[in-house]
Amino acid sequence: MNIKNVVVAGGGVLGSQIAFQSAFCGFNVTIWLRSEGSIGRTKPKLERLRDIYLNTLEQMKTDKSAYCRGFSDKEDLTIDEIDELKECTIKAYDGIKLTTSYEDAAADADLVIEAIAEDPEQKISFYQELAKHLPEKTILVTNSSTMLPSSFAKYTGRPEKYLALHFANSIWSNNTAEIMGHSETQQEYYDEVVKFAEDINMVPLKLKKEQPGYILNSMLVPFLSAAEALLANDVADHETIDKTWILATGAPIGPFRILDIVGLTTAYNIVIMNPEAGDKNTTPGKIAALLKEKIDEGKTGINAGEGFYKYT
Amino acid sequence: MNIKNVVVAGGGVLGSQIAFQSAFCGFNVTIWLRSEGSIGRTKPKLERLRDIYLNTLEQMKTDKSAYCRGFSDKEDLTIDEIDELKECTIKAYDGIKLTTSYEDAAADADLVIEAIAEDPEQKISFYQELAKHLPEKTILVTNSSTMLPSSFAKYTGRPEKYLALHFANSIWSNNTAEIMGHSETQQEYYDEVVKFAEDINMVPLKLKKEQPGYILNSMLVPFLSAAEALLANDVADHETIDKTWILATGAPIGPFRILDIVGLTTAYNIVIMNPEAGDKNTTPGKIAALLKEKIDEGKTGINAGEGFYKYT
Repeated sequence: MNIKNVVVAGGGVLGSQIAFQSAFCGFNVTIWLRSEGSIGRTKPKLERLRDIYLNTLEQMKTDKSAYCRGFSDKEDLTIDEIDELKECTIKAYDGIKLTTSYEDAAADADLVIEAIAEDPEQKISFYQELAKHLPEKTILVTNSSTMLPSSFAKYTGRPEKYLALHFANSIWSNNTAEIMGHSETQQEYYDEVVKFAEDINMVPLKLKKEQPGYILNSMLVPFLSAAEALLANDVADHETIDKTWILATGAPIGPFRILDIVGLTTAYNIVIMNPEAGDKNTTPGKIAALLKEKIDEGKTGINAGEGFYKYT
Repeated sequence: MNIKNVVVAGGGVLGSQIAFQSAFCGFNVTIWLRSEGSIGRTKPKLERLRDIYLNTLEQMKTDKSAYCRGFSDKEDLTIDEIDELKECTIKAYDGIKLTTSYEDAAADADLVIEAIAEDPEQKISFYQELAKHLPEKTILVTNSSTMLPSSFAKYTGRPEKYLALHFANSIWSNNTAEIMGHSETQQEYYDEVVKFAEDINMVPLKLKKEQPGYILNSMLVPFLSAAEALLANDVADHETIDKTWILATGAPIGPFRILDIVGLTTAYNIVIMNPEAGDKNTTPGKIAALLKEKIDEGKTGINAGEGFYKYT
């Protein structure tokens, strides 16, 4: 099969980025949304993405450090090539269709990318309704960060053509896509999704089997938890912990700057999943208390201007 | 107090480096060794260090990337300044005394740095014998990676002047020093050790309380274990796992290259401390089996020319 028509379900932060990037790379893109209200909220996101792409591309003409890997494999683009990419941006913006109709969205879809809320009930009802309208050929992927494809496969009507394609935020610069099947996913559809990821300038990161947290979060969560534990148990301050990691591993930033980027609310939601977090004498309890205090002060991370560090 | 006379106990990889770096920075250094045989094994290590320092410094005259943080705070040294450091290197090499005598070593020691084998019995008998000879003033630190100062304080005769000062390998370039007291360590001696670390061009990383693994290994061990688990459970190959970490965090290398640097034997010794490692159906058991297979093939890491990756 040759993927041409892509449907993105959901117009949130990631949904709008996935749709925009796919359109930018020449795919016919439709965003399916639950309501007219969602359409109203998605349009300004697409406008903002268009402006980010256009401005960044323009900047690349004079400043090579502005280069984003999602725009092109080639780091050193000519002015003409950059102008072509600006045209692709305008075409992408003009070409994306928005619909609330399952029929319209599903009609000739080669690939549906589900990027709706992380709520199992919403996902199940979406899959069940979608299944009524999808043609036989359609591959269906989920961008879910926290749920496993095996939990939903049976609701899709096409378990063999269902898998996970998981993006990072700001996909035009953080261009990774973790690709993960479940036990019934057929290799040929997995391979199609790998190819699609490459075609939209992502670096495909292939998982051979299901893994909660994929590859990245399987490492990031224990790493960040260990750093949080050192702070919560008052072993060292956050600057010292970051400095230790940076000096020892050559990393550009340490765990507390990563936490500011991830967001303290996300970190808090992860730690409170631990049953021990209810007891303030345990390490998870101390971590939860420490994060909650910062969240209550509005210091939720880089997007709020302050987390563990201040950002101006 | 003003530290001038430094005794390093042990002439192993780290002991010889600590002694050399301290002498390079102008301290009077004596290496205490258990036997004449140890003296014979330590001398070539000091010669090798002298040559590394001299060659690297010479290289810095034409190649700024050769700069090592342990040589000087200043990155951009003049030829004259480099030549001065080369003189310090020769003076260091010529000035280091080696002895097997507790009396000679202890006589006027301001600071004793214990860097003998990671064997509690050897450490205890060393501390007990040393205590008979040390003057009141002497501060005593351990470079132990895996043991806590509180385990040994009572054998030192000076628990208030005893703490940990933990170095990284290749201290002239990896110039971090984790500093960790136990509950009875007095602040003034802790502060003296911090100052000493700075005086030998280390970045002091201050721990406020005892922590097994200090700061670095408290984060590195769970991080590397998580990466090993992904490989051992066949979720992804090691290149994909490294690529994921590098792309997502901007780190220069991923966990499997770090493991090659740490050495697979060390990684194996850590995982087999887990009681589950005996059962091949558990994740620690699978990790142990995977590491053992590589170790048996001689692929123990970068020093062997091959670990997870090949090095030429």
